[in-house]
Amino acid sequence: MTIVLGDNQYGKAETHVVRVTKSGGTHEIRDLTVTVALAGDFAETHLSGDNSKVVATDTQKNTVFAFARDPIGDIEDFGLRLARHFVGEFASVYRARVHIDEAAWSHIGVGGKPHDHAFVRAGSEKRMATVTCTDDGSWVVSGVGDLLVLKSTGSEFHGFLKDRFTTLAETEERILATSVVARWRHVDTQVEWARSHDDVRRLLLETFALKHSLSLQQTLYAMGEAVLRARPEVAEIRMSMLNKHHFAVDLSPFGMANENEVFYASDRPFGLIEGTVTRDDAPEPGFAW
Amino acid sequence: MTIVLGDNQYGKAETHVVRVTKSGGTHEIRDLTVTVALAGDFAETHLSGDNSKVVATDTQKNTVFAFARDPIGDIEDFGLRLARHFVGEFASVYRARVHIDEAAWSHIGVGGKPHDHAFVRAGSEKRMATVTCTDDGSWVVSGVGDLLVLKSTGSEFHGFLKDRFTTLAETEERILATSVVARWRHVDTQVEWARSHDDVRRLLLETFALKHSLSLQQTLYAMGEAVLRARPEVAEIRMSMLNKHHFAVDLSPFGMANENEVFYASDRPFGLIEGTVTRDDAPEPGFAW
Amino acid sequence: MTIVLGDNQYGKAETHVVRVTKSGGTHEIRDLTVTVALAGDFAETHLSGDNSKVVATDTQKNTVFAFARDPIGDIEDFGLRLARHFVGEFASVYRARVHIDEAAWSHIGVGGKPHDHAFVRAGSEKRMATVTCTDDGSWVVSGVGDLLVLKSTGSEFHGFLKDRFTTLAETEERILATSVVARWRHVDTQVEWARSHDDVRRLLLETFALKHSLSLQQTLYAMGEAVLRARPEVAEIRMSMLNKHHFAVDLSPFGMANENEVFYASDRPFGLIEGTVTRDDAPEPGFAW
Amino acid sequence: MTIVLGDNQYGKAETHVVRVTKSGGTHEIRDLTVTVALAGDFAETHLSGDNSKVVATDTQKNTVFAFARDPIGDIEDFGLRLARHFVGEFASVYRARVHIDEAAWSHIGVGGKPHDHAFVRAGSEKRMATVTCTDDGSWVVSGVGDLLVLKSTGSEFHGFLKDRFTTLAETEERILATSVVARWRHVDTQVEWARSHDDVRRLLLETFALKHSLSLQQTLYAMGEAVLRARPEVAEIRMSMLNKHHFAVDLSPFGMANENEVFYASDRPFGLIEGTVTRDDAPEPGFAW
Repeated sequence: MTIVLGDNQYGKAETHVVRVTKSGGTHEIRDLTVTVALAGDFAETHLSGDNSKVVATDTQKNTVFAFARDPIGDIEDFGLRLARHFVGEFASVYRARVHIDEAAWSHIGVGGKPHDHAFVRAGSEKRMATVTCTDDGSWVVSGVGDLLVLKSTGSEFHGFLKDRFTTLAETEERILATSVVARWRHVDTQVEWARSHDDVRRLLLETFALKHSLSLQQTLYAMGEAVLRARPEVAEIRMSMLNKHHFAVDLSPFGMANENEVFYASDRPFGLIEGTVTRDDAPEPGFAW
Repeated sequence: MTIVLGDNQYGKAETHVVRVTKSGGTHEIRDLTVTVALAGDFAETHLSGDNSKVVATDTQKNTVFAFARDPIGDIEDFGLRLARHFVGEFASVYRARVHIDEAAWSHIGVGGKPHDHAFVRAGSEKRMATVTCTDDGSWVVSGVGDLLVLKSTGSEFHGFLKDRFTTLAETEERILATSVVARWRHVDTQVEWARSHDDVRRLLLETFALKHSLSLQQTLYAMGEAVLRARPEVAEIRMSMLNKHHFAVDLSPFGMANENEVFYASDRPFGLIEGTVTRDDAPEPGFAW
Repeated sequence: MTIVLGDNQYGKAETHVVRVTKSGGTHEIRDLTVTVALAGDFAETHLSGDNSKVVATDTQKNTVFAFARDPIGDIEDFGLRLARHFVGEFASVYRARVHIDEAAWSHIGVGGKPHDHAFVRAGSEKRMATVTCTDDGSWVVSGVGDLLVLKSTGSEFHGFLKDRFTTLAETEERILATSVVARWRHVDTQVEWARSHDDVRRLLLETFALKHSLSLQQTLYAMGEAVLRARPEVAEIRMSMLNKHHFAVDLSPFGMANENEVFYASDRPFGLIEGTVTRDDAPEPGFAW
Repeated sequence: MTIVLGDNQYGKAETHVVRVTKSGGTHEIRDLTVTVALAGDFAETHLSGDNSKVVATDTQKNTVFAFARDPIGDIEDFGLRLARHFVGEFASVYRARVHIDEAAWSHIGVGGKPHDHAFVRAGSEKRMATVTCTDDGSWVVSGVGDLLVLKSTGSEFHGFLKDRFTTLAETEERILATSVVARWRHVDTQVEWARSHDDVRRLLLETFALKHSLSLQQTLYAMGEAVLRARPEVAEIRMSMLNKHHFAVDLSPFGMANENEVFYASDRPFGLIEGTVTRDDAPEPGFAW
């Protein structure tokens, strides 16, 4: 028996960079949190502490800031430039993965017009990109996180398996509320990222709204299917939906009816539904995930 | 020397209630987190464990749900109804305070029109109300929390005291970013709450944008002054501003200039600026805070 | 009507300093998070942006690090040195408050003996001190936070008020679990802080354990009373207890009894019990809180 | 092109169960947070909303509580019983994964002896187990999370790659602080779980303490190697180490030296080092991870 080093990677996580772009007196800001992870020929630092092939995570952080000096563009492109840099610059780096979370800001409106250089955070959801590069290819996964949605009707849940531990009542009317993380892998890297992202997000929201739901799984699949049907650049979409239970409160002890109007929003435990929708002819995922 | 019971209060915190209102097929939702705190004749439960004057916190929770059965209206009104109930119903309750955080949801747009019963969380900030009632009066404090704003220019900081521990460079150009909690006390309870809230929030945002800033304190005061000048129903406003430092990254080691374009957004430590703006003829705060 | 500046303070929050002390090859570490808040003659920075009386929060941070160069001692003493410095050094500072959270670390045991310079975090609770100084005096509040305790029996709750919204069953047997924040004000600043702290913490824990509880309020009072009875240097103690509800799960649908053995630990809503225990001859609190 | 359902699973996450065991007047408590995830023949609920093969997540929660009625034993065994139940009871469930986090509590000491039924939370780290069962096998991964360790000397970092973005100084003396998550896969399910866990944890801590570190990767490997060398029941160990940077503060502007005594503990960005140590003859991981 020999003890051996298995899979490993390392990097700098959560470098928070804000980039201001000035065009005349009008500013735009970008708010990115960037995580880099490198894999490659790093056995020696593990085995003997010889760091001669190691790109210090501090250098990775510096690189993120230096690359932010140029126009950032879509986070998918920014991630591609960074990931290709690490793979191209350092022989010891076989695979670089760059994950970016972007927070959105809006110009503050003053007198009905957007102010030049004052901003307010726009929403709690985040746009995401995960880019992976090797010498042989590049893979881009786009995404949206912390997307909170709720339907106050149009959701049922019944016909499920019963066993001796089942007490849940069947229902033809419930609140469906979920925190969605959706990540979609692109067929290649020739994509109009912003337009694609906006349309995928729109399709996810519209399908959540329009699909009459018999289960959260059905809703998840419908959302993914809608994206794949409309966006040929998407090869696969993975969704994680945190089912935020809303229980109708029993008001009968107080002599009151409650026809699905008053709900208790519970924190834990929660349902967690994870699923993938893809094409039967999708290219191999390679190192995308 | 005698050991005595001093100030005390108790209650149920963070009852999370979601209320659906249906008008034909069109739904609206309200998402409130309600905290109740009662003070009064509760010495006995402390001293002997005699609970005969204690309103169980479980009962407080039930009361929140039962009161949510009726139309909720503005959170200030909902808080007033709840607080007055506790004071009026129970002789042992001398003072009831109800704090409510409200999260906003928007109808999901489908084909350019708002969907009837599907919603997406709107923003990360929260609307707040703190209502306090005794037999002798009622006090309402409205507020906004987690309001993230940023100016990419129009902010200076110089001329401050220097001592042997001062290393900060003076600057005529910096990012000013802050997470604002603003809470304003009303002159009385005869207020159009929603209209007042929206206008105060607008004034805070506009003043943050328009005021050229020599210090975050100056910005804070200007924001409060703008509110008091325009809204006679506001007696006093208290603001807490978390100064989220954005440091221009030194790119010179890489042969690059950085003219306030690339910033590192730091988490901790942070500045914390707290201030009150009021009127010299404001009514006494009583039990408002 | 004139608009005026009311109460205000500002400072640097959450400077996280770790101090290593070396005695031969044996090291000790201290892990402090320090928040400074200054009040004084700061009207001008609010009104005109004139910062000539302002101690920059960056300077406050530097001061924390510089003062950590000397032996830190108890956090109460470290806070006193810092607060007195700000009041003494700057004419514009009338009141300085320094709050410190300390996290504990233990030497890692190797072969049954503590290792010289390797440490593991010891527990999740924190020791706290809040020191306030003016030209006229100094006040010290010590404390403990995030102290999680639980009794699996010896806790009842019954005899409470009933109204039309009461559904809670009376019980002579329940789990009592609470997250305690206790803060105690000292009579003066001549205290052996570490010994006092350890003994107060011991008294809080022992009393929680030994006191048969008819209500969480009764437990709170007993804990405070035990501290005041034994520790003459303590003038007053304020406690906040988050009642973490544990509900016995109804297993009867599965044909099982549950004699207070299986509990569901709920997150929200939670009870929140706040109370003060003091002496009738305690000195005035001044600016302590 | 056909759109198809890919990998999917669902379950109830974070059921928080507290189990009290009474032996005479002496109680013990167990504090578990249990997450269940099932995979299997669930295409229909995705495609048509037919839930006839779906075990409701509410039923999963009930099952956790019902199984907690019997003595829990080690969390690995509790996970095995639960996972086997789901696979064995429901033809549609092909794979069940149960993840358990356990929080530790100690008896409160009173007069030097442990109190019968009063407890205080012991530490912030958690013991973990992830158990996966199919019809064909069972896999157990044990672990420890949120294990915070720090070395105040005995850590160097130099000899790393330099490029145009490198500014980090080489050092022969730094603080090494890390939050460790370690998870180890067992060769089979015939293990004395508690003894094995305690010994693995001890080996991780001792090796962190004793290994002179030239890089965090070297420390990680040494920790894994020590576990595999001593514990034949462990086939593979995966570690994730969050490098919590401690920067020596530059006190020279204040005329002070700082010989690695005063450090600023930074939150973000942070290094993230992930690695696996295994045996060349380890059994295949199957569905363990």
